[in-house]
Amino acid sequence: MVQVAVCGPADCSDTETAWAYQTGALLAARGAVVLTGGGSGVMAAALDGAHSASGVVVAIRPDGRPPDHRPADPDRTDAAVTIRTGMGQARNAILIASADAVIAIGGSWGTLSEIALACRTGVPVVSLGGWTILDRTGTRVPGVVLASDPADAVAAALAAVAG
Amino acid sequence: MVQVAVCGPADCSDTETAWAYQTGALLAARGAVVLTGGGSGVMAAALDGAHSASGVVVAIRPDGRPPDHRPADPDRTDAAVTIRTGMGQARNAILIASADAVIAIGGSWGTLSEIALACRTGVPVVSLGGWTILDRTGTRVPGVVLASDPADAVAAALAAVAG
Amino acid sequence: MVQVAVCGPADCSDTETAWAYQTGALLAARGAVVLTGGGSGVMAAALDGAHSASGVVVAIRPDGRPPDHRPADPDRTDAAVTIRTGMGQARNAILIASADAVIAIGGSWGTLSEIALACRTGVPVVSLGGWTILDRTGTRVPGVVLASDPADAVAAALAAVAG
Amino acid sequence: MVQVAVCGPADCSDTETAWAYQTGALLAARGAVVLTGGGSGVMAAALDGAHSASGVVVAIRPDGRPPDHRPADPDRTDAAVTIRTGMGQARNAILIASADAVIAIGGSWGTLSEIALACRTGVPVVSLGGWTILDRTGTRVPGVVLASDPADAVAAALAAVAG
Repeated sequence: MVQVAVCGPADCSDTETAWAYQTGALLAARGAVVLTGGGSGVMAAALDGAHSASGVVVAIRPDGRPPDHRPADPDRTDAAVTIRTGMGQARNAILIASADAVIAIGGSWGTLSEIALACRTGVPVVSLGGWTILDRTGTRVPGVVLASDPADAVAAALAAVAG
Repeated sequence: MVQVAVCGPADCSDTETAWAYQTGALLAARGAVVLTGGGSGVMAAALDGAHSASGVVVAIRPDGRPPDHRPADPDRTDAAVTIRTGMGQARNAILIASADAVIAIGGSWGTLSEIALACRTGVPVVSLGGWTILDRTGTRVPGVVLASDPADAVAAALAAVAG
Repeated sequence: MVQVAVCGPADCSDTETAWAYQTGALLAARGAVVLTGGGSGVMAAALDGAHSASGVVVAIRPDGRPPDHRPADPDRTDAAVTIRTGMGQARNAILIASADAVIAIGGSWGTLSEIALACRTGVPVVSLGGWTILDRTGTRVPGVVLASDPADAVAAALAAVAG
Repeated sequence: MVQVAVCGPADCSDTETAWAYQTGALLAARGAVVLTGGGSGVMAAALDGAHSASGVVVAIRPDGRPPDHRPADPDRTDAAVTIRTGMGQARNAILIASADAVIAIGGSWGTLSEIALACRTGVPVVSLGGWTILDRTGTRVPGVVLASDPADAVAAALAAVAG
């Protein structure tokens, strides 16, 4: 299965929330597994969008098993698979390594760390409304495809996966 | 969803292979997500068994994204979700932290590390044909439930999850 | 430099505390860097023993940077180097991978996970007062050298390192 | 002890190499432990600089224990302590979590991931000759202190640590 990570801030705008939801739904409709970091904001919206299209979602969370852990309600068949890494922000590296492509929506330091790890390790990255990175000469650093809306982002990500 | 890890050696006996396949199938039939370490032997058999019952399987692998990575064939809808941790044997800790219960089949050092991590962190463990651990007085260390066959193991694991 | 991990329970006996202190001191006197998991009990005693012999100690801790982090007092030159993995029990795998040999003192599930990871990955292990592991036929699983006291353990560990 | 990470590209310019060496030497002269990612380029130069001033250096490497591992020559007392995480680029998160402050020299995706992780988790960052990050309005994203030379960078990092 093709696995696409949707990354973005836990604290995001209404536009970013809508973009994330649509991105998740479009990916699921195309049969891709949606990977997220398991947080709120862009992460939660992408998960909800994928669920709306009956997609498989895996939330790769920074926290581990809590001392008072109770499993999710087995009757809630819509819930995501949850990987509890217990590794804090190091889970970003797992999320990226597990992705065939990354769609980043909005800007934050956590999101930037994921974009940077993806570029470092050769995972295709598509950005929708994110930060800009300039090298010492003021030139945009290459490596990230810019998209204008969710449909554009999903098309670019799946095209990159197909190679 | 309830998530149960099936652990065991990559190099295993025919009996252990059969047990792992049946365990995966029984878990999937009960609606549980099957987590494995993504290797051969017990891990592969548990995955195949869960697939035979149309279950969701997540393979949490020790290796990361290879330099020449190509995504899985998108038409192979039976393939497992793959988490490429890139963390070697540290992925054992992620597998255990993500599990609501663990079924260990057979004995090996890697399997023992998973049992020990589970007992260390309070994840219920059921053992089918595994090693025995004695304390300094020669007494069996408590913490692992012994099962006699796959049906017994699955019943014990799900009972432990239900609390 | 030779790096030797000293592993053992956070909650240990007086004998184990004394053994760990002597082990740390003997390793430091032989010029080995002492690696520990950074906790209490055996871990703290090994660290103190190595400090008593002016050794270099690295504490590889399970927790990460706390929100209210303050660096250690720069005038406390006796303090250990601290690696804050933020990875919970997955730090056990880092501790083992970083060790040229492991000395395990006493028994606990966390300690057993470290012994198992070491045996899984080929790191020599010397055990002083630990648990016993039997395979399905009731035979002791090979791979761990048994020591009778700290001097014996240190000699065995350094001999294993020297190959 | 105060622990400062020196980050930067494995493939760097002569100026960056010289800056890294001086930064390592200045940190060691001030009594700080120097943490690096254990690679070539900026990482190796920072390590060499710290050694030149008899400092303690810890190399937190991405790779794990190789199958044919041989410990470092015990007579080479100048060698760094080596943490073999076996976690690939996830080691960047460990390096950052273990640092009281970060000095980034030059620009690369790996270095940017470390800067982003530091800003995400509240570790002070000083940048010497690095990339620039602009938000959607074209404004420089705050959070990184810019330095003009190694002495400036070390002074800024230690001032940030002192709070």
